[in-house]
Amino acid sequence: MATLGLIEYADASPEVRAVYDDIMDTRKTDWINNFWKALANDPATLRRTWEDIKQIMAPGALDVLTKELLYLAVSVTNQCGYCIASHTASAKKKGMTDDQFRELMAVVGMANETNRLSAGYQIEIDEQFKV
Amino acid sequence: MATLGLIEYADASPEVRAVYDDIMDTRKTDWINNFWKALANDPATLRRTWEDIKQIMAPGALDVLTKELLYLAVSVTNQCGYCIASHTASAKKKGMTDDQFRELMAVVGMANETNRLSAGYQIEIDEQFKV
Amino acid sequence: MATLGLIEYADASPEVRAVYDDIMDTRKTDWINNFWKALANDPATLRRTWEDIKQIMAPGALDVLTKELLYLAVSVTNQCGYCIASHTASAKKKGMTDDQFRELMAVVGMANETNRLSAGYQIEIDEQFKV
Amino acid sequence: MATLGLIEYADASPEVRAVYDDIMDTRKTDWINNFWKALANDPATLRRTWEDIKQIMAPGALDVLTKELLYLAVSVTNQCGYCIASHTASAKKKGMTDDQFRELMAVVGMANETNRLSAGYQIEIDEQFKV
Amino acid sequence: MATLGLIEYADASPEVRAVYDDIMDTRKTDWINNFWKALANDPATLRRTWEDIKQIMAPGALDVLTKELLYLAVSVTNQCGYCIASHTASAKKKGMTDDQFRELMAVVGMANETNRLSAGYQIEIDEQFKV
Amino acid sequence: MATLGLIEYADASPEVRAVYDDIMDTRKTDWINNFWKALANDPATLRRTWEDIKQIMAPGALDVLTKELLYLAVSVTNQCGYCIASHTASAKKKGMTDDQFRELMAVVGMANETNRLSAGYQIEIDEQFKV
Repeated sequence: MATLGLIEYADASPEVRAVYDDIMDTRKTDWINNFWKALANDPATLRRTWEDIKQIMAPGALDVLTKELLYLAVSVTNQCGYCIASHTASAKKKGMTDDQFRELMAVVGMANETNRLSAGYQIEIDEQFKV
Repeated sequence: MATLGLIEYADASPEVRAVYDDIMDTRKTDWINNFWKALANDPATLRRTWEDIKQIMAPGALDVLTKELLYLAVSVTNQCGYCIASHTASAKKKGMTDDQFRELMAVVGMANETNRLSAGYQIEIDEQFKV
Repeated sequence: MATLGLIEYADASPEVRAVYDDIMDTRKTDWINNFWKALANDPATLRRTWEDIKQIMAPGALDVLTKELLYLAVSVTNQCGYCIASHTASAKKKGMTDDQFRELMAVVGMANETNRLSAGYQIEIDEQFKV
Repeated sequence: MATLGLIEYADASPEVRAVYDDIMDTRKTDWINNFWKALANDPATLRRTWEDIKQIMAPGALDVLTKELLYLAVSVTNQCGYCIASHTASAKKKGMTDDQFRELMAVVGMANETNRLSAGYQIEIDEQFKV
Repeated sequence: MATLGLIEYADASPEVRAVYDDIMDTRKTDWINNFWKALANDPATLRRTWEDIKQIMAPGALDVLTKELLYLAVSVTNQCGYCIASHTASAKKKGMTDDQFRELMAVVGMANETNRLSAGYQIEIDEQFKV
Repeated sequence: MATLGLIEYADASPEVRAVYDDIMDTRKTDWINNFWKALANDPATLRRTWEDIKQIMAPGALDVLTKELLYLAVSVTNQCGYCIASHTASAKKKGMTDDQFRELMAVVGMANETNRLSAGYQIEIDEQFKV
């Protein structure tokens, strides 16, 4: 059940509870998932990670759903089981339809394929692509 | 210059030229990048890969820019130099702004970080996330 | 239960037992974990892997705990579930404190993030860093 | 020369210069490497990344050299060319000897090997390792 | 049980059944594994993936067993649990002996090790290897 | 030119020369590539790595060409530039035809694609595949 255990709200320090409260408030939810309960064993990392995610995943030039889809694409590429499960759920909550999921998966699969074709054929970068 | 060399249009077989023509026609461009010129050494793979990409990257439940951003997110995660260069250029052509690129990079970096935190803390999947 | 099964001490050949004995003797332990029991299906690989690890993980310019932390950092980056579990246990046995584990995880997460920022921004190597 | 170019000190905004100054001050150096010059195109990410790294890489339960070695181990595992070059230089500056580098490389190589043996043999986690 | 559920033959559309029939016919088997039942939620991807695999895995310059071994080597390198299980079974069905499996694993482990030694030592490509 | 430089035969210690001689003798070649020249900075690792490779890559239940193809498949999956270049050359020397290379690349690309489809759809392992 996680290397250092999971810190439940009832057992959390005021510092950890403050982060939990902000997570629930920001996400309009009434529970905390295991990721945060595990990170709570390291309050500095809990706070830093949450502050970073809150800043990065806020709507900006990219909308929140697009950001969540990108998060899922990375998690699938890295074969991270927990991340795939949690970000699939999160993307659905933010409006991802089944059709969007299907297309996301097709793109991620294709990109992983052509990434290897590019490397394996030892293809040099075209002048037109150089920055 | 690529393991089996690059096949220029002038030297291409009719089968390869047909794919090149379709690429240029579909993408409204007048040149072929090194990826396709390298794959042309294997006409079956050239055709299959192009047909797959044409199908997958067409607008659908996800728009073409979102798909291109996902492609770039995967390529960055895999550290594929050629793919990062070509898909950054491609995303810009499809309308990616500098601000969108900046946010994309921040999300991809963050996801790669939390993917490892999840794995390293040996976090179990919450019941709420199970499918 | 592992592709080719697990070879218990009682069922092991003299060649495999010799390696098991050396593992238990070197590590001051009285049991063999599943990794070795699985590799025992290939005695040549069992012996080679054990001899390599014994040589590489011995104290040298880096102490044994530092080496174990590095092993864990790699395993987390690769999302290897078995390896994370076994090397977390091994690092604890060699003296890793909870605080050290927390800091290790933070570094591994951060490195995985900036690895992608470096690749995604297509950053060239500074002259000062070239070997 | 990096996707959005490199921001030199002379051309940087006060916000970016403040981060550059803190980097040079903290690291006792008089120059800024390309990683920060590229991130400066996104001042929010520049600041966030620097603040995170400053916090994470500070001496704590693990000393600064050990943290740098871990950073390098991750970068090598991910095949990140820029990161390997910059963190090898950084580790040397923090005191990594050639012998320590040699042993680091041996451990990283070995861990990447056994990570695949564990996965490929489909080895289950021992009860003793379960958290 | 898979993100969008598993589509059993009895519940499948004629389009999906046609692919299932072709899979069972081509592979001389009377059941469909979970991979295809999950992909069936996206009939276009199901058909495209199956047609691609049928073309790619057919005997050619490489025999079917060699292709299956390569598939397994990639899956082990990527730490893909499902893929390792399914392609180990598939390779056995195509004739992989236990000795071949043992040697495959040894090669995959070794390659993953030297891949990191090459990157970590920042080794430049020999003139003799340049294409 | 490699982190610790490259050790030429003329400058090598007797211990290193003995390994170089065995490499050239075993491989029927009159030169040493940069990989070994870099590893020679760590004679223990040079010897261990060479002995391991000599044992693992020798003909056995799998022939030497198949082993070399597997090595290349792993290197491509890991995006290791040096390894792709050197093992493509090595595979050609051992008899890999252009057609075999083409098919290898197609299989490696496909496997990398379906590895992500399997993970992304969160597919459970079929009972039939369980060991």
